[in-house]
Amino acid sequence: MKPVNVGLLGLGTVGGGTISVLNRNAEEITGRAGRAIQVTHASARDLNKQREFSTAGITLCQDPFEVVNNPDIDIVAELIGGIEPARELVLKAIANDKHVVTANKALIALHGNEIFRAAQNQGVMVAFEAAVAGGIPIIKAIREGLSANRIEQVAGIINGTSNFILTEMRERGLQFDAVLDEAKELGYAEADPSFDIEGTDAAHKLTILAAIAFGIPLQYDKVHTEGITDITPADVDYAGELGYRIKHLGIARRTDHGIETRVHPTLVPRKRLMANVEGVMNAVLVKGDAVGPTIYYGAGAGAEPTASAVVADLVDVTRALTSDPENRVPHLAFQPDALNDGGVLAVEDNETAYYLRMSAIDQPGVLAEITRILGERDISIEAFLQKEQEPDTTHVPIILLTQKVREGNMNAAIEAIEKLPVVSGRIMRIRVETLA
Amino acid sequence: MKPVNVGLLGLGTVGGGTISVLNRNAEEITGRAGRAIQVTHASARDLNKQREFSTAGITLCQDPFEVVNNPDIDIVAELIGGIEPARELVLKAIANDKHVVTANKALIALHGNEIFRAAQNQGVMVAFEAAVAGGIPIIKAIREGLSANRIEQVAGIINGTSNFILTEMRERGLQFDAVLDEAKELGYAEADPSFDIEGTDAAHKLTILAAIAFGIPLQYDKVHTEGITDITPADVDYAGELGYRIKHLGIARRTDHGIETRVHPTLVPRKRLMANVEGVMNAVLVKGDAVGPTIYYGAGAGAEPTASAVVADLVDVTRALTSDPENRVPHLAFQPDALNDGGVLAVEDNETAYYLRMSAIDQPGVLAEITRILGERDISIEAFLQKEQEPDTTHVPIILLTQKVREGNMNAAIEAIEKLPVVSGRIMRIRVETLA
Repeated sequence: MKPVNVGLLGLGTVGGGTISVLNRNAEEITGRAGRAIQVTHASARDLNKQREFSTAGITLCQDPFEVVNNPDIDIVAELIGGIEPARELVLKAIANDKHVVTANKALIALHGNEIFRAAQNQGVMVAFEAAVAGGIPIIKAIREGLSANRIEQVAGIINGTSNFILTEMRERGLQFDAVLDEAKELGYAEADPSFDIEGTDAAHKLTILAAIAFGIPLQYDKVHTEGITDITPADVDYAGELGYRIKHLGIARRTDHGIETRVHPTLVPRKRLMANVEGVMNAVLVKGDAVGPTIYYGAGAGAEPTASAVVADLVDVTRALTSDPENRVPHLAFQPDALNDGGVLAVEDNETAYYLRMSAIDQPGVLAEITRILGERDISIEAFLQKEQEPDTTHVPIILLTQKVREGNMNAAIEAIEKLPVVSGRIMRIRVETLA
Repeated sequence: MKPVNVGLLGLGTVGGGTISVLNRNAEEITGRAGRAIQVTHASARDLNKQREFSTAGITLCQDPFEVVNNPDIDIVAELIGGIEPARELVLKAIANDKHVVTANKALIALHGNEIFRAAQNQGVMVAFEAAVAGGIPIIKAIREGLSANRIEQVAGIINGTSNFILTEMRERGLQFDAVLDEAKELGYAEADPSFDIEGTDAAHKLTILAAIAFGIPLQYDKVHTEGITDITPADVDYAGELGYRIKHLGIARRTDHGIETRVHPTLVPRKRLMANVEGVMNAVLVKGDAVGPTIYYGAGAGAEPTASAVVADLVDVTRALTSDPENRVPHLAFQPDALNDGGVLAVEDNETAYYLRMSAIDQPGVLAEITRILGERDISIEAFLQKEQEPDTTHVPIILLTQKVREGNMNAAIEAIEKLPVVSGRIMRIRVETLA
């Protein structure tokens, strides 16, 4: 059969990785796909840049629209990232009857509903495995591998930068800022790391995971998002004393009331496999009603791991080229008419256990006041640590683990406790998940 | 679209699970597959047996060939297990132009080449996700999710019974036989557990994993297979002292000389995620040249986890019903004309590190003799434990960890050491893998 022609938008890290993998493993990929997959055209901002990979045999141009409008191209691989012009390019490619493969999580999370509708109408495929957890085939696992299940929960370590920082803080007892600087030097964090450390990147990915797990449209604006910037070495230590590790998780969970979607630092029991995913690695726990808990682990970023997913999508699209469009794997796992809005919950209606750290005057009756406020809001205490008073201070740290509670109740309790004269400053709260 | 009709062979554990999952999650499954998937016919040896699941709406019969020959059935799900009549039924179903879904690892490992050839000629699909690692979508991950990669290694905990026994031996310090009895009581081991504890079941699964990872035909007879029956609590303890845990692994690895396929107890460094997979759970490590190491974890057996894979295959086949047969995912990941025999190595040519435990007279010069024999065969010692002499014995246990060595060399060294007058009895050997 004649080769499939790919037009590549962007010759950055992922674009380069994609070309390298397609070249190096050409024989294996052809053997799997049944025909060769070749990059014939590519666009890049700077055509004269020195690159570490060969672009031999590829027609290069500066204008990505030239690639998207080229009638010889079967599949467009969008690897430039960001919203515009990526969105316009993808929609133009679809309108030109081309299939699209993209690694762009922000684009899919924010504009996927529009893009998938256009693709559906045109009868073309948009594949986005590389948008979540790099080389781990997590989209495929949920959308196809677990298609028998009513999915109950998805919980993922889906931002390698945050996981690297938390791992280093724990293993070496370092402050957040010190590790962040190191991560920048190692290339694990961008010069502007805010997307990673404030949770935005994880929220994009969680939006996608929640949609394909629960059959709901993409709803990025409903994800409650917190990053790891407030985590202190003391919290990491106290969590350890209580038998937990702090992980930055994206969690989507089906409850009787609706679906929780949230991204935040989380205490996870130390013995769980998810608590032992270290450094820049990613892992996603998916719990289905038939299969029970399953975990998918691997590299969540980097040129070749991401290219692994991009190329797997190219093979998938190639394998499905001749299939009847209405029988293909649906973009969001469910057929468009089977999607429902799923009642994604407001953050106040989420239910979880909490780690609370506060600073209180070391005098009799303080703990009684705090537990009274918690008790009035149906919050039970699971464990309690009181640390020694530091020299020259009047306050001691008090650490509480609570049982599960509605977040709205916890907000009210925290507000009331912070108003107590014996408590100083803000209360640090970190959610606790058993992931069992 | 009109529903897909499934004919089910066997109403045992997996058959019952499949019916339960299809009924319970009918709405979700239809939403994903784009049409309903319904079991219309089923065969069972005893039609009058009381069952825990409903067979309402299903036409039951005793003769499975009635199901296979029924013109209304689109997909046959073979869930009776064993070789015959399963083989004949599957071939007949294929000849009748039906797609097949099977959970039968022995059948695929031993007769898959014949079955896939027949299916290829007939233009039908044979799906077998449930044959390996229960509900974990590991076939899909390797065959589709990692299709960009040259696979370097697959290493799996793929027999839950063996993993349960090894976990209990370690956690509770028990003898093999005691845990086996307990496993039988808990339903984790069959009345005749030999397929599990002697490694046959894992070898069936490894045969399948090796084929789809490396693009080679199924070659069960070339797998070197050892079970866990010789592992003692002392070995478990010594492994722990050295920083390892003993896991029963199926390993398929690409080397410069050919492909290793082997199933045996293995020392794995305690900090690896794979070493922390406990009880009846399964996990498979797959290492690709682009993606690096990835791990897939979940329940490897049980009615509903296995049904999860069977039903996922039913959805997959349904989604691909209208696709051009030559564009479908190939049974063994690669197109038939891209398979090669891959040069599977004889066990003597495998390379691995070793744990050796022997019993020697406690006198000067013994260790020198042993290390001389190892040194003559280019075997370096990595670590060494000598235990205290037990009261009323003349011998002490000596434990060695070696560096990597060709298995043929190790065989010769062990033979020579066992002949030393100062060494008593057989040497216990367990292979060591870093899984890094």
